Amino acid sequence: MILSLDRQIPLSTLSEINKYIHKVKIGYPLILENIEYLDDIVKLHWDEIIFDLKLADIDNTMVLIVSKFINYADSFIAHSFIGIEGALDKLSEFLKNQNKSLYLVLSMSHKGWNDEFYPYLKNIAKTIDPKGFVVGATRPNMIRIVRNDFRDKIIISPGVGAQGAMIGDAICNGADYEIIGRSIYESKDPVTETKKIIETQEVKINECKRTEN
Amino acid sequence: MILSLDRQIPLSTLSEINKYIHKVKIGYPLILENIEYLDDIVKLHWDEIIFDLKLADIDNTMVLIVSKFINYADSFIAHSFIGIEGALDKLSEFLKNQNKSLYLVLSMSHKGWNDEFYPYLKNIAKTIDPKGFVVGATRPNMIRIVRNDFRDKIIISPGVGAQGAMIGDAICNGADYEIIGRSIYESKDPVTETKKIIETQEVKINECKRTEN
Repeated sequence: MILSLDRQIPLSTLSEINKYIHKVKIGYPLILENIEYLDDIVKLHWDEIIFDLKLADIDNTMVLIVSKFINYADSFIAHSFIGIEGALDKLSEFLKNQNKSLYLVLSMSHKGWNDEFYPYLKNIAKTIDPKGFVVGATRPNMIRIVRNDFRDKIIISPGVGAQGAMIGDAICNGADYEIIGRSIYESKDPVTETKKIIETQEVKINECKRTEN
Repeated sequence: MILSLDRQIPLSTLSEINKYIHKVKIGYPLILENIEYLDDIVKLHWDEIIFDLKLADIDNTMVLIVSKFINYADSFIAHSFIGIEGALDKLSEFLKNQNKSLYLVLSMSHKGWNDEFYPYLKNIAKTIDPKGFVVGATRPNMIRIVRNDFRDKIIISPGVGAQGAMIGDAICNGADYEIIGRSIYESKDPVTETKKIIETQEVKINECKRTEN
């Protein structure tokens, strides 16, 4: 599981949650709220800190942006839609040189996203060859398609909980990680909620594995 | 003309440039370098302060982001390819309620951008009905197409100078403003460079008007 943090929560709570969730995704809402909070986050033990900046600009601007976070981030999220030459080519090269990873968005979780572009985005993804992809948990069919097209890549899926996808569904359809944010950090008791969600996910995954066999 | 500021320059220089250029575009590289610099920028007299955040996320996240800058910005730039429901619909509504404007990206200036999607982006643009559009100055044909499709909208064109488009070309093809950044703020004498660029633009515009008549 990946914790999506869009705002600060007490460090004591975060370090409790960190016992159960070992990957965290950070976006601009949190960064802009208090950039110094990043120093606290990195002190905890995460397998991966993902900066979800939905990078979608020209190469020069994207490299300037990721450079600001290079000491905090293990990986960054960018849009594949912007294309390669003068955009993702330089970003991907820069991140590789810095030993950082890249996730490309192939399908978003909100209703208005249009999957008609997937064939185009797929070609970009094959050329850039990132660590993995973002595919909305609200689109199980797209998760299956992307899993089929990219056997060895990591698929991370936002949109679980507050945005409507059921816990465990994305994993059952081929995603590697589900991204959960508001359901945890907006809960009255985030730590208990974290444990409940992990349990729910485990039950669901076992169920779908049974039906698969 | 619009000054694109990706990094800080001495305030004395900026206020000199402000005598000639009355619109400024600010992006994350500058914001992340020193967010307090925004307080200095707003003290100068700009007709418009455009926050170029290339917004491309779900509605909740985009509204959280623009809320942080609502007291600084007159307008924001978002991508149209993310679609409407659960994304641009809420962003556009939020900005209208705050009396702020929106520019949608219809074509970017770098080589890797794919204009095949323009028909789709155009439909989104017609539905959202923003103040105007971003169309790369390196794509004169796209500027003409967008101008033809959207007679009364503002077209702003990045990509002049450092990215390769000639000064004045975008205006001659139908854009309202050319966006210039590195050619000015990376120059040894940004104020003199500003005057030279404005002069070059005027000469080019007069030339192309003469050839039109």
